[in-house]
Amino acid sequence: MTLLPTFAPPGSKRELEEGETFTPRFGPDGLITAVAVDADTGEMLMLAHMNAESLARTLATGEAWYWSRSRGELWHKGATSGQIQTLVEMRVDCDQDALLLRVRVGGDGGCCHTGRRSCFYRGVSYDPESGAVTLVPRAS
Amino acid sequence: MTLLPTFAPPGSKRELEEGETFTPRFGPDGLITAVAVDADTGEMLMLAHMNAESLARTLATGEAWYWSRSRGELWHKGATSGQIQTLVEMRVDCDQDALLLRVRVGGDGGCCHTGRRSCFYRGVSYDPESGAVTLVPRAS
Repeated sequence: MTLLPTFAPPGSKRELEEGETFTPRFGPDGLITAVAVDADTGEMLMLAHMNAESLARTLATGEAWYWSRSRGELWHKGATSGQIQTLVEMRVDCDQDALLLRVRVGGDGGCCHTGRRSCFYRGVSYDPESGAVTLVPRAS
Repeated sequence: MTLLPTFAPPGSKRELEEGETFTPRFGPDGLITAVAVDADTGEMLMLAHMNAESLARTLATGEAWYWSRSRGELWHKGATSGQIQTLVEMRVDCDQDALLLRVRVGGDGGCCHTGRRSCFYRGVSYDPESGAVTLVPRAS
């Protein structure tokens, strides 16, 4: 791997929103939220988190690295499953505390640990009569 | 407004992933991450957060309510700007700690407080030679 990029601390609101410098705003837990979408269709695949090292590795290798909050470790997505996420484009939002990753998925094309392609395989259905909220399977 | 729905506490891993009960997992700060995308094109518009009340109001009213972390208050998106987000569908992810909102945006169709349609108006560009990371404007 080449030298990992480092990130400067955030500047003013104007610099965050209109500047040309990437100054990702990690939360108190050291993490930034990252959403992976299919680079071709835009379909939302998963939402995960990155610390500075996983973000740096993602940029340097062109493959998505996350921080696994449940395991407390760096997570090279697909390293065991083959579902490598090759980065086509990374975007950052206005206040630089969220990332969008446009990816192409290797292996069987899945992203979710349950075996589905996308993690968002259920709709949330609200019945105003009863007030009940239920989950309904969706194709993904 | 009709009676606001309430949410049961999360169950087992299997219930979270395969059950029919919506048990959103709010973080230690009482918030859950929500991503709004254009219901027709799938374009990612913004990433924000909801507490239980904003989530309940979103389901009950069919319009997106968030929790503004900067202002520390409930935030009916578009109440002042006209950029109301009408909910077409809500989805939840495998472990029920992230929401996807498919919305139609009112007013001028914008979502970002900077005036842009989407908050993700800059690409993150990495130069492996110099190690520099810069932001590049993108159409949004």
